[in-house]
Amino acid sequence: MSTSLIVLGATGLVGRTMLRVLEERQVPVGDLRLLAGESAALRTIEFRGRAIPVRPVAAEAFAGADLALFACKNPVAQRWAPVARAAGVTVVDASSAFRYDDAVPLVVPEVNGLLLADHPPLVANPNCSTIAIAAVLAPLARAAGLERVVVSTYQSVSGAGREALEELERGIRGGLDGPPPARRDGGPPFAFNVIPHIDRFEANGYSREEMKVVWETRKILGLPTLAITATAVRVPVRVGHTAAINVILDRAMDPDEARALWAATPGITVVDDPESGRYPTTLAAAGRDDVLVGRARRDVSHPRGLECFVASDNLRKGAATNAVQIVEALLAVPGGLRRAGPPPAGAAAGSR
Amino acid sequence: MSTSLIVLGATGLVGRTMLRVLEERQVPVGDLRLLAGESAALRTIEFRGRAIPVRPVAAEAFAGADLALFACKNPVAQRWAPVARAAGVTVVDASSAFRYDDAVPLVVPEVNGLLLADHPPLVANPNCSTIAIAAVLAPLARAAGLERVVVSTYQSVSGAGREALEELERGIRGGLDGPPPARRDGGPPFAFNVIPHIDRFEANGYSREEMKVVWETRKILGLPTLAITATAVRVPVRVGHTAAINVILDRAMDPDEARALWAATPGITVVDDPESGRYPTTLAAAGRDDVLVGRARRDVSHPRGLECFVASDNLRKGAATNAVQIVEALLAVPGGLRRAGPPPAGAAAGSR
Repeated sequence: MSTSLIVLGATGLVGRTMLRVLEERQVPVGDLRLLAGESAALRTIEFRGRAIPVRPVAAEAFAGADLALFACKNPVAQRWAPVARAAGVTVVDASSAFRYDDAVPLVVPEVNGLLLADHPPLVANPNCSTIAIAAVLAPLARAAGLERVVVSTYQSVSGAGREALEELERGIRGGLDGPPPARRDGGPPFAFNVIPHIDRFEANGYSREEMKVVWETRKILGLPTLAITATAVRVPVRVGHTAAINVILDRAMDPDEARALWAATPGITVVDDPESGRYPTTLAAAGRDDVLVGRARRDVSHPRGLECFVASDNLRKGAATNAVQIVEALLAVPGGLRRAGPPPAGAAAGSR
Repeated sequence: MSTSLIVLGATGLVGRTMLRVLEERQVPVGDLRLLAGESAALRTIEFRGRAIPVRPVAAEAFAGADLALFACKNPVAQRWAPVARAAGVTVVDASSAFRYDDAVPLVVPEVNGLLLADHPPLVANPNCSTIAIAAVLAPLARAAGLERVVVSTYQSVSGAGREALEELERGIRGGLDGPPPARRDGGPPFAFNVIPHIDRFEANGYSREEMKVVWETRKILGLPTLAITATAVRVPVRVGHTAAINVILDRAMDPDEARALWAATPGITVVDDPESGRYPTTLAAAGRDDVLVGRARRDVSHPRGLECFVASDNLRKGAATNAVQIVEALLAVPGGLRRAGPPPAGAAAGSR
């Protein structure tokens, strides 16, 4: 089978990583169409040795395609997802535009990939930090039940996109021998700084990034009332998100049991021998497709508590790799890829 | 009154910061003696416009002094504290050598400065992260009681000393256009990395730095059984520690009440208007003597939970400033500074 695949947002950090991951995983793509906004600087991108033109996104571009990977911002996804669906194209969207729509599955294939079995026409790819957190919590939830989860993230600047990454580089170079220069958008410098602000703030005092961890972990794990809280923090690293996770389970769990559960879970690699210098770090996770977990220990503050530390590449498993895995799973569904067709009139929000 | 003061470890990051803080706060120091190990590179350090010689530490150096600030490693503190005490010198020790000795007060002046009223001959200065955490928790504990605390730290490389800071600079410069170079001591690069490893690891899987937060917060707050846990993480910033604190109180507390409690506490500055870009960051705290707190919000995971984020300069309030404040408090004790004299025979551990 050879699939006709669109990548919308092909010139961004996540879009380019999707192309690399599609190559590496040898996904059977026949016709590849690269789309971007009109401001895209690149005219062609190489894929499997061929220079593929990057075209401005337009309705005609979707005709006859099977699948579209969206690596664009929310407004772009909101505008073009209905167009794609009307053209019978299944959309895997890495933006947050549809993640909280009950009709749209939010998928980490190793956790809830079964949701792909009924050929949903639109699948949402979760938040970059949440994917690793949900992956690591899922086997604990299944084995012992979750009572409460407290997360603190350490997120790389690439999670904010290419311009932010350029700001980090500019700040690092300008801050080698003095204070880092002011950021062009007026925010606090990324370089040599720790900033508890990712995405905009909500009325409850949480940042939207923090609420994404809350909302999306609940949805992915199928635990809509899970007690979970998060603090989302930007740190001056380029690629790779890490998180400290404190979890209270419904029963006590020895760290050895947790490590065994994780080791038996696809997509997770246990890196946990601190005294030998083995634990997850940003640099250890960068460039990899798996989620690293370690520092597992019995919580000294609670008899049923467990602490751990996770790391993953936010552009790969946190975005591109997870989206490509969703594509792979859709392609593997018996009966092949359903042509979703336009949603029935009046059922736009519940057409699954 | 003009005091004879010793700084042991005067050439290190904390020792030099102590000298700057003593100048800034106009502490009435008459005779100042600077001591260091034999490897100290500097021969003189300027203090109030005079070049003071740095001498190798020796027993004779303590004779006739009133007070000694120790800014040295544990073995050095363990060796010279008894010598200082035998010479009648009151010691304020920034190492962790004596912090867990029941007879030695562990002091954050704004929290438990009353312990200085009985002229202890040896006072321990707490861990750099813990000072800010305890300062922010103290008014909450007094007003509402603490049920459980979960901390995640974001600690600067200066907390590991001058050589580590040089490693960060080397890693940043070597990593501008490629992967950062390996660290000379074999550890993971500080540059562009997040590392959940500070100090050595304990048998329970926690790092010693994490257990310092646990042990020292309990001791400073006078809550020996407080349920508290921590994850201590090194991030690639130069100066300034931050921490995400999740606390369950004995009763629900509105963030406005928490902010009012903090605003009424000396040494704490509330920086908390996230939508206007006001929240604690590393760079905002660096160079300041106060503890910044913000991001206060009701915990979405617990009805009595409160989240906040703190930042402080780990060389100043986290070390030098707090130690100098202890000196100031000792000097202010009615009756003047007690000459502690040698501890009575057989009562070495309980001579207070």
